[in-house]
Amino acid sequence: MSAAPRVYLAGPDVFLPDPMAAAETMRAACAAAGLEGVFPLDAALVRMHEEPLTAFAARIRAANLDLIRGCAGVIANVSPFRGPSADDGTAYEMGFATALGLPVFTWSSDTRSLLARTRDLIDLFAHGADWRDAEGMLVEEFGLPVNLMLVDPATGPVHPHFEAAVATAAARLLTD
Amino acid sequence: MSAAPRVYLAGPDVFLPDPMAAAETMRAACAAAGLEGVFPLDAALVRMHEEPLTAFAARIRAANLDLIRGCAGVIANVSPFRGPSADDGTAYEMGFATALGLPVFTWSSDTRSLLARTRDLIDLFAHGADWRDAEGMLVEEFGLPVNLMLVDPATGPVHPHFEAAVATAAARLLTD
Repeated sequence: MSAAPRVYLAGPDVFLPDPMAAAETMRAACAAAGLEGVFPLDAALVRMHEEPLTAFAARIRAANLDLIRGCAGVIANVSPFRGPSADDGTAYEMGFATALGLPVFTWSSDTRSLLARTRDLIDLFAHGADWRDAEGMLVEEFGLPVNLMLVDPATGPVHPHFEAAVATAAARLLTD
Repeated sequence: MSAAPRVYLAGPDVFLPDPMAAAETMRAACAAAGLEGVFPLDAALVRMHEEPLTAFAARIRAANLDLIRGCAGVIANVSPFRGPSADDGTAYEMGFATALGLPVFTWSSDTRSLLARTRDLIDLFAHGADWRDAEGMLVEEFGLPVNLMLVDPATGPVHPHFEAAVATAAARLLTD
């Protein structure tokens, strides 16, 4: 039997109070579906003595990109993060993986449209058929739960929870 | 003389009240530096009769990725967007370009550290040496103005304005 396909678990879960507990839960769900979950903190980097913070940050970034390069796909948590949008670091990793040809499967704790969710969080103003914020910036409205760049039609919709994204990823990666 | 290197102008500027005016200003600054600015709306897509919004969104996404593929570099606006973080669609495009090997140059209207800016916008709580939000989620602190994934040491710091990013991009792309 060949090794389980490795999937990188992108998302703001690394910022949780107990990220390793979250990682173990996600890894178990992946394993049950025949996948090997790879968590961003798996590189287990430690700041070196007197290493400048920006140098440490650069090492973490390089390690995460290397972890992605070693995976067959990505499962990304695009839940709203400190505002209506997805975590920007997660989005960066999704774009990186996509350009490498890796399928990216997404899930969100809130699959309402971006407009509906933004309207809940921020004062919006109607402008013809558009909705704009106090700075006059348009709110995208394509009925999608995230910015349109984050939705790859080739890998399906934004799933309503992690397990659903795992199931779709397994169906794809175990038959490729 | 060879053609000016094309640079993709990633950012939430597409949501401005008059995005084409912003595009022209940015394009002029690029031209003055010997670069050709490529704006996401350059694909000039129009929704087809009765085309589902999600299908239109997918066409826009594909067109933007194609524009990036045709460029020699990216200049990205990572200014805070509806919260402390950068626009997630912009971050996605940056990651995509990076994996293609394109240099990505960044600028922001606010180059304070992510922690300093987040503290201004959201109630944070000290937790040992860390700062956490009301959900207990850690705020990254590496002294960087954005999530660490968005800072590529190979292309310099986050510049304080667009023109500075253009100058760095030109210095790099016109000598490569």
